[in-house]
Amino acid sequence: MDSSFAIPSKGSIGSDGKPVQIITNSSASKPSELPNAIDLSHHLTELSKHRAASSLKELYRYMAVPHMITMAGGVPSPELYPFETISASLLTHDAFPLDYPRVPQKPKKSFFSWLFPSFKPTTDISIPKYVESADASTIQLSTYLQYQPATGLPAVPLFLRKYVELVYQPAYADWDVLLNCGATDAWNKVVLMLVEKGDPILVEEWTYPGASNSYSPLETVKIALKMDGEGIIPDYMDKLLGNWDETARGMKRPHVLYTVPTGQNPTGATMGADRKKAIYDLCCKYGKSYVIICEDEPYYCLFTGKWTPKKLAAEKSIMAQRTEQAEKQDGKEGNEAFLKALPPSFLKFDTQGRVIRMDTFSKTSCPGSRLGWITTSPLFIERLTRATEGSSQSPSGFATALTGKMLSEWGMEGYIRWLRGIKAMYKMRRDWMCDAFENVFHLEIDDAPNGVKTNDAVFDIFDGTARGVTCYAKPTDDTAAGRWDEKKGFSSKHGLPLVSFIPPTAGMFIFLAIHMEGHPDYKALLQKGENAVEVLMTKLWLELAENLVLFAPATSFDANGVHGIGGEGIGYFRLSYSIATYEETNRAISTFAKVLTKFFRA
Amino acid sequence: MDSSFAIPSKGSIGSDGKPVQIITNSSASKPSELPNAIDLSHHLTELSKHRAASSLKELYRYMAVPHMITMAGGVPSPELYPFETISASLLTHDAFPLDYPRVPQKPKKSFFSWLFPSFKPTTDISIPKYVESADASTIQLSTYLQYQPATGLPAVPLFLRKYVELVYQPAYADWDVLLNCGATDAWNKVVLMLVEKGDPILVEEWTYPGASNSYSPLETVKIALKMDGEGIIPDYMDKLLGNWDETARGMKRPHVLYTVPTGQNPTGATMGADRKKAIYDLCCKYGKSYVIICEDEPYYCLFTGKWTPKKLAAEKSIMAQRTEQAEKQDGKEGNEAFLKALPPSFLKFDTQGRVIRMDTFSKTSCPGSRLGWITTSPLFIERLTRATEGSSQSPSGFATALTGKMLSEWGMEGYIRWLRGIKAMYKMRRDWMCDAFENVFHLEIDDAPNGVKTNDAVFDIFDGTARGVTCYAKPTDDTAAGRWDEKKGFSSKHGLPLVSFIPPTAGMFIFLAIHMEGHPDYKALLQKGENAVEVLMTKLWLELAENLVLFAPATSFDANGVHGIGGEGIGYFRLSYSIATYEETNRAISTFAKVLTKFFRA
Repeated sequence: MDSSFAIPSKGSIGSDGKPVQIITNSSASKPSELPNAIDLSHHLTELSKHRAASSLKELYRYMAVPHMITMAGGVPSPELYPFETISASLLTHDAFPLDYPRVPQKPKKSFFSWLFPSFKPTTDISIPKYVESADASTIQLSTYLQYQPATGLPAVPLFLRKYVELVYQPAYADWDVLLNCGATDAWNKVVLMLVEKGDPILVEEWTYPGASNSYSPLETVKIALKMDGEGIIPDYMDKLLGNWDETARGMKRPHVLYTVPTGQNPTGATMGADRKKAIYDLCCKYGKSYVIICEDEPYYCLFTGKWTPKKLAAEKSIMAQRTEQAEKQDGKEGNEAFLKALPPSFLKFDTQGRVIRMDTFSKTSCPGSRLGWITTSPLFIERLTRATEGSSQSPSGFATALTGKMLSEWGMEGYIRWLRGIKAMYKMRRDWMCDAFENVFHLEIDDAPNGVKTNDAVFDIFDGTARGVTCYAKPTDDTAAGRWDEKKGFSSKHGLPLVSFIPPTAGMFIFLAIHMEGHPDYKALLQKGENAVEVLMTKLWLELAENLVLFAPATSFDANGVHGIGGEGIGYFRLSYSIATYEETNRAISTFAKVLTKFFRA
Repeated sequence: MDSSFAIPSKGSIGSDGKPVQIITNSSASKPSELPNAIDLSHHLTELSKHRAASSLKELYRYMAVPHMITMAGGVPSPELYPFETISASLLTHDAFPLDYPRVPQKPKKSFFSWLFPSFKPTTDISIPKYVESADASTIQLSTYLQYQPATGLPAVPLFLRKYVELVYQPAYADWDVLLNCGATDAWNKVVLMLVEKGDPILVEEWTYPGASNSYSPLETVKIALKMDGEGIIPDYMDKLLGNWDETARGMKRPHVLYTVPTGQNPTGATMGADRKKAIYDLCCKYGKSYVIICEDEPYYCLFTGKWTPKKLAAEKSIMAQRTEQAEKQDGKEGNEAFLKALPPSFLKFDTQGRVIRMDTFSKTSCPGSRLGWITTSPLFIERLTRATEGSSQSPSGFATALTGKMLSEWGMEGYIRWLRGIKAMYKMRRDWMCDAFENVFHLEIDDAPNGVKTNDAVFDIFDGTARGVTCYAKPTDDTAAGRWDEKKGFSSKHGLPLVSFIPPTAGMFIFLAIHMEGHPDYKALLQKGENAVEVLMTKLWLELAENLVLFAPATSFDANGVHGIGGEGIGYFRLSYSIATYEETNRAISTFAKVLTKFFRA
């Protein structure tokens, strides 16, 4: 018995002292023509390499013998668990409609009472302590509230492998899934597996600071990749890595990419298929020694499609209308249209097993489940399993039991339908906010798919195929516009561009670019040698807060710090539309318009 | 806003976009005369020191403003959580009796059907998504299934602080508790906070190998501390550390101690008050730069008291009988007797904040909760909170909601009573196994509290105040005993000592010492230069397995490897009595006796 004998003997023995059967993906049938993952073990850290494997096979064989009396484990008897049965009132898979009126009908009392009338379609699920004849997919408290193997009890992984096959379709054969305690837990384990102290890490120029809580303590260096409306710009990445001078830089070429490809946090940018293919090819360009792609996808299923301004709604193309119709249909056809509309995962292009995809139930079920999964190669799955044995051991059995029961209650088609209901809710809220901007500003929508044309800095962020929107004061309104017109002879009849953004096609965020260079104090502040944008953005943020509107300042998302990417004269806010009601959204944005107009009058 | 702005904005906002109120222990009233923790920050690793603090206070102040519309967060709306209500059928706090007949009455069908008749006292708990007027102790799905601060929502920590005050009574004022995903998760975070690559770690000579999964990958060096029946021997530890030669050893003096003081895994040894005091003083001996005590206490509440052999049951002292009676009483008096009987925590002696105590709900509720807590100083709590933000974020909300509801349903007195029921169950099972040995072996119980006298090596492990037991073949039985008597003229009329153990006073393990030096092949194997004990123990383990009895080999628990502590001619097994039924226990031990006797005949 090796020195990690005791861990799996705790971690893998069922309530009856018998080992929990572990089913891996190897048992799943795969298209035979697909290749297996290549060896990428040279990417592992010393810490990861030194994790001892638990070779329990020997003991398993004996534990599995009928009538064996097992005193080798160290697990409590399920009789002592205080929970005899756990039940839940679960929303049905089709509890949320697939479409909403653009303007909600007036609520009776509150918004919630409108959205959720007294009747809510629910179904009751119940998990007993013991099930008479149990198989691999059985969920019972006696095993789910027991110690579990780091690879998890079979029910949820079995479902997730089918889901990965259906939705992501990895391009190699021997991938597998591993449960974790949510994407932050997953990313932390990936960082400790791949990132040595002082390593450079490739990140989007605007990146989720929460992720840096895992790698920054290792004194890593963020290498920012320029983005447009579709995320990372391949040419920029190619030049950066191609010209990487290890001596001049004093560090090796980056081998880890952290990206949020869909509904990116904070920019809301979403990578399409061509963009992902181009970046994947780049990551293989210098051979297997090259970049591991860590794909963090919390917002993947919140892919809401494009926003159409009310004034253009009539002009929708036949194609667009057909797609919309298909996505509103219930049943298998609608489900297929939904899946077809989703951007492909990096896994779809991964023929080598260099993608580590992180999924979570936080947005599709609830954050409190602290339940997610990684899809990647056998090498990484095995090392991450060792890391799990030495840290979280396994996700909470309450979470895996209730989530597993939810999935089996709905089934795969039902779960896809549920995701469509969630998507529709986010689409509704996204439309509320974009419409709110259209209500209070004059919008100029760019005809060509190349973002906002009025400012190079914004162009920087917002070009690509996504269509940008620039907000001007409404001419009817007694705005600063006119005055600025005279002073600067700006081309637009509406005067100064105030705000630009790209209506997001996924996620929960709108990233606002404030054209601070148009502020009367801007030049004076620069002349005083101050950071004009920071000074004015802070002033604006506080004025908004004093008017009861709280936006997220973007500085903490800037991979290169406040003076980094973004360009002269532009400041940024991240707005979330995930919580606010229709009334709150409209109140907030109209307040913003008033405060902003006043602010620019100074 | 600092670069970790986004994490707490995710981690700390309630369903309504308002921040979750965080209550710390500083608000709890403390005996004013107690000192505060001293500064031990020089023990922190570089990794831990580099964790950025999340300074959200600024944003909090604004979020707390009434009628503020918060678009700064990034959290899903609780309306989208599929769980409307979660309910459970919960055993009542007094579901388990406080005493059991030494020999269970014949079960009707199976043991379980006897132990758990059709009627089981349960109570129904239910957690709705929304509660009308919520306060800090309110448990509702809308907040518990939302992102939570790393410090957790208040209900469970509030209960645990009261519990720590009542049961552990730390000797300094500003301690606090921090939730985690179970003791393994806790220990992994502590290791990354305190242990640098290559550091030595003080461990018991027999130690839980699961714990090494967290530190061994750091290429640490286990420094084994000799034990007796009460665990670590202070004199040995004092000499080891006092004479530590950093140059000769090529490493600094160890500054981290990992110990399981109660029902130690695998030896079952339990430290008394004097032993703990002596070790704590040692850890302060060389000033504040000295040892941090990491107290891992999964079995603390499974403190079952001493086993009395049936043949001595009548001779119980009046004192012992009185204690037993008190512990069988229901109500407050019985609860107080239970708490009084528990060994003190190291916290009871901790005037400096150098103890990191790890508790878990795995044995007192269920392992699947993956819920535990750390009690330690503000410095360590704060650093561990940062580590939690960058890894597990928080325990599962399903686990904290259901555990919190369980605790509030039972109340403090009810929870203590529940623990007494669990303790009684383990006492029952411990007695079953010890009685089973008494049934099939002739036992010699040492009169003096100095362990087993027949063998120096065993003496090594088993001396101290705990009373050892040595098993001989029953004379009535046609054993090898006679023959060995002739051959070796052993003092005991029962021939060879076969097995020795100390009846555990806590936990779920019995640690068997097999007197392998008595085996006929032993000398021959030694002469052949083989590891006689290992060869024979493997042979015996396999023969037992073939007879449907599975014990845990002890080699993986040996801190110094197979050739380390244990002594000439002695092999070890760890037996768990936590799962087996009465019938299984007796069948296993009588099978063991038969196999062993045959084995020694060779």
